Amino acid sequence: MWVFLNDQFVPENEACISVFDQGFLYGDGVFETLRVHGHRVKFLDDHLARLRESCRLINLPLPNPEPNWREHLQELCEQNSLVEAAIRITVTRGTSATGFASHPASAPTIVIFARPLPNLTSEHRECGVSIATTDIRRQSPLALPPNMKSLNYLNNILAKQEATRKQAFDGLMLNTDNHVSECSTSNVFFVKHTRLCTPSIECGILPGITRKIVLKLSQDEGIPIQEGRYERQEMSQATECFLTNTGFGILPVQTIDSHRMGPYGKGSITNRLRQAYRAYLGMAGEDSLKS
Amino acid sequence: MWVFLNDQFVPENEACISVFDQGFLYGDGVFETLRVHGHRVKFLDDHLARLRESCRLINLPLPNPEPNWREHLQELCEQNSLVEAAIRITVTRGTSATGFASHPASAPTIVIFARPLPNLTSEHRECGVSIATTDIRRQSPLALPPNMKSLNYLNNILAKQEATRKQAFDGLMLNTDNHVSECSTSNVFFVKHTRLCTPSIECGILPGITRKIVLKLSQDEGIPIQEGRYERQEMSQATECFLTNTGFGILPVQTIDSHRMGPYGKGSITNRLRQAYRAYLGMAGEDSLKS
Repeated sequence: MWVFLNDQFVPENEACISVFDQGFLYGDGVFETLRVHGHRVKFLDDHLARLRESCRLINLPLPNPEPNWREHLQELCEQNSLVEAAIRITVTRGTSATGFASHPASAPTIVIFARPLPNLTSEHRECGVSIATTDIRRQSPLALPPNMKSLNYLNNILAKQEATRKQAFDGLMLNTDNHVSECSTSNVFFVKHTRLCTPSIECGILPGITRKIVLKLSQDEGIPIQEGRYERQEMSQATECFLTNTGFGILPVQTIDSHRMGPYGKGSITNRLRQAYRAYLGMAGEDSLKS
Repeated sequence: MWVFLNDQFVPENEACISVFDQGFLYGDGVFETLRVHGHRVKFLDDHLARLRESCRLINLPLPNPEPNWREHLQELCEQNSLVEAAIRITVTRGTSATGFASHPASAPTIVIFARPLPNLTSEHRECGVSIATTDIRRQSPLALPPNMKSLNYLNNILAKQEATRKQAFDGLMLNTDNHVSECSTSNVFFVKHTRLCTPSIECGILPGITRKIVLKLSQDEGIPIQEGRYERQEMSQATECFLTNTGFGILPVQTIDSHRMGPYGKGSITNRLRQAYRAYLGMAGEDSLKS
């Protein structure tokens, strides 16, 4: 595998950064994970917009002019013969030998590499996964802007660890106001009284790209949507539930703690949206690389 | 400069880690900063105790047996001829090519390097620095254990950036319960009615090693101490204020926002504690390397 590092492609075992990189020392950086489908990088413009916003929120100036993202991603796909994969772009504040308070000595560090998609079983894909409510809460918007995707991921890691201890696929985090927010690497949706519900941006969630697409597709499909603040107990009346992220798209949930849902037959909202999402992902969209 | 990396010393420009290191990708690791004074590493046992606690809180198993910290630090001091310096120990979960949810492919990454002490002016040291209350709050204990020193440092970086914008030396963070917590890289103390006040551990502060020493020295000096929950406005009645951390020890504060304090003459509590701290630091303590 080849990795793009700052301004060149290097073999993965040579893709190294300084131990003085602020990203390594303080998690002082941001990232994006993009989907490659049928050789093409999907929804690039949306991911770049969020990357720029993440940088803005931590006052990390991107190089001016910016790297030619489209060209580098295309080359990464070709060099690694990617068909279906995830690509991660990481940008850090660069190296500094004197602590985080001073200006970094270098330009930002930019790393782009590919990873396999999440390895899900067909049972997970078709019947759904289990999620468990965690004691760990989503970080407070008062302490870190929730709408950026930063390298400070321990909050999510602790939620995932707690879910694993509870023998669940993923952990469902409440926010510090006791409302449902998101899972450790995904946004969450549920169906109640034939209405599609999902925590609103005000709940301190990461505004997921797949979440945004699902909201658009629901509108196209005529499915009533309600973004809002939800207590955990409201999800115990859900008839359907699913998670969204770039890697797996839409993933049905079978159980929330002890509450069981599904099955996700042809007429279910989850299934309709999965079909619509697959079709949407397959389209040669405006920001697919080869269109 | 020589850097200790996993199991060997390498020149600083060769001290590199994989871009697949979990510490780099997710801030999935912990660190400690230790003081070297007069060729000796100070308070090693306290720092190692906190390092182990930090690892425990994120379920990061240290190698078994642990590295011979004392020996590695002594060698680092000798190889780099350190007299007065800071040493940083960083431990991460190691490399993983498939995301944070899976077991890392490698043992933990361990990096130890030295840095110069903070470069303070004599005016800062003698007359004191300015601190500004920040809008950014200290991270919630519900989202991340506050008593660990993790690589997730963006909360502190944002506080420091805000302080710099406000032309202050450092940012004073309240917690999400509106109580005073700490500054971006230091604990805070203030004097009110000849009593030494500092936010209690329950305020979600990092339990600083220098803070602990100052509390001990205050007791020895017969200075009344009050650890508690403080509103920001209580600090506007302070007659003295100082910050503590490993790098600068005790640093007087001249202004908190618009409230001015000092001077820190011979009889001030701040000055008495600085003298006691200097003496304590100079002693060949139980955990100094060459004792």
